[in-house]
Amino acid sequence: MDPWFVTGLAEGEGCFCVSFSIRAKLRCALEVRPSFSLSLNERDRPLLLDLQAYFGCGWIRESRSDRTFKYESRAAGELMAHVVPHFEAYPLRGCKARSFQGFARVCRMIEQGDHLERAGLSKIVEIAYESSLGKRRHDQAELLRALGEVKG
Amino acid sequence: MDPWFVTGLAEGEGCFCVSFSIRAKLRCALEVRPSFSLSLNERDRPLLLDLQAYFGCGWIRESRSDRTFKYESRAAGELMAHVVPHFEAYPLRGCKARSFQGFARVCRMIEQGDHLERAGLSKIVEIAYESSLGKRRHDQAELLRALGEVKG
Repeated sequence: MDPWFVTGLAEGEGCFCVSFSIRAKLRCALEVRPSFSLSLNERDRPLLLDLQAYFGCGWIRESRSDRTFKYESRAAGELMAHVVPHFEAYPLRGCKARSFQGFARVCRMIEQGDHLERAGLSKIVEIAYESSLGKRRHDQAELLRALGEVKG
Repeated sequence: MDPWFVTGLAEGEGCFCVSFSIRAKLRCALEVRPSFSLSLNERDRPLLLDLQAYFGCGWIRESRSDRTFKYESRAAGELMAHVVPHFEAYPLRGCKARSFQGFARVCRMIEQGDHLERAGLSKIVEIAYESSLGKRRHDQAELLRALGEVKG
């Protein structure tokens, strides 16, 4: 699988996402989960297997509602080791390039442990919303409010 | 624009189509129109301009209903000179590869003038339906019936 083919396919079908959950029990009240995913029609499942082999991480699952299969990589360490370096070496060209830049910043901050401190987490929320990183259950104000309630 | 990027993008977003119109005034009663198109969100219009420059043919038009822009190449001569050779040199991998194979056969038959004879046109209809080459206004039986009514 040519690396540029991977980038071209992701330009159209790939999704960089950072989702948040409010978890009162966590020290900073927010859980942050980055993911890269790519969905294709069920007939193209072999292509997703090639993609999984190319990245050397992630898994494939079925979405029965719309007869698609989705390749997904969610572990921050794997994203930093395999997915982010690919898109830095073979960059996206369209508006997804901007999403990726925000995504890569978030992954890097998580790797450095910034998501374990209130200031870092607040910055991650800001980047995720600026870079339109996927649909989120909570709006930005709600997340920052949850963060604000944490005892510094 | 790397050629493999073009193929990767087309794997997800490209569309190979052969459409038919019943035209009583034509010698064979059927008009056949192959096209290659690729639609993206309006924010990615620059990418479509790059694609147009890459292929050296086709045009871009707006679809106001869904805020997308579409690159499209319809001239059989241009398809044979620019689009078909690209996808033969940098092949698609998924189920779109099969659509392309049918599409290339149809373009080649049109270049040879096979669409001007009833037998050739009938074969083109068969290939188009076998290869799922896009949505069509008429079903296969209707097209073959129109062809059958032509005086041999």
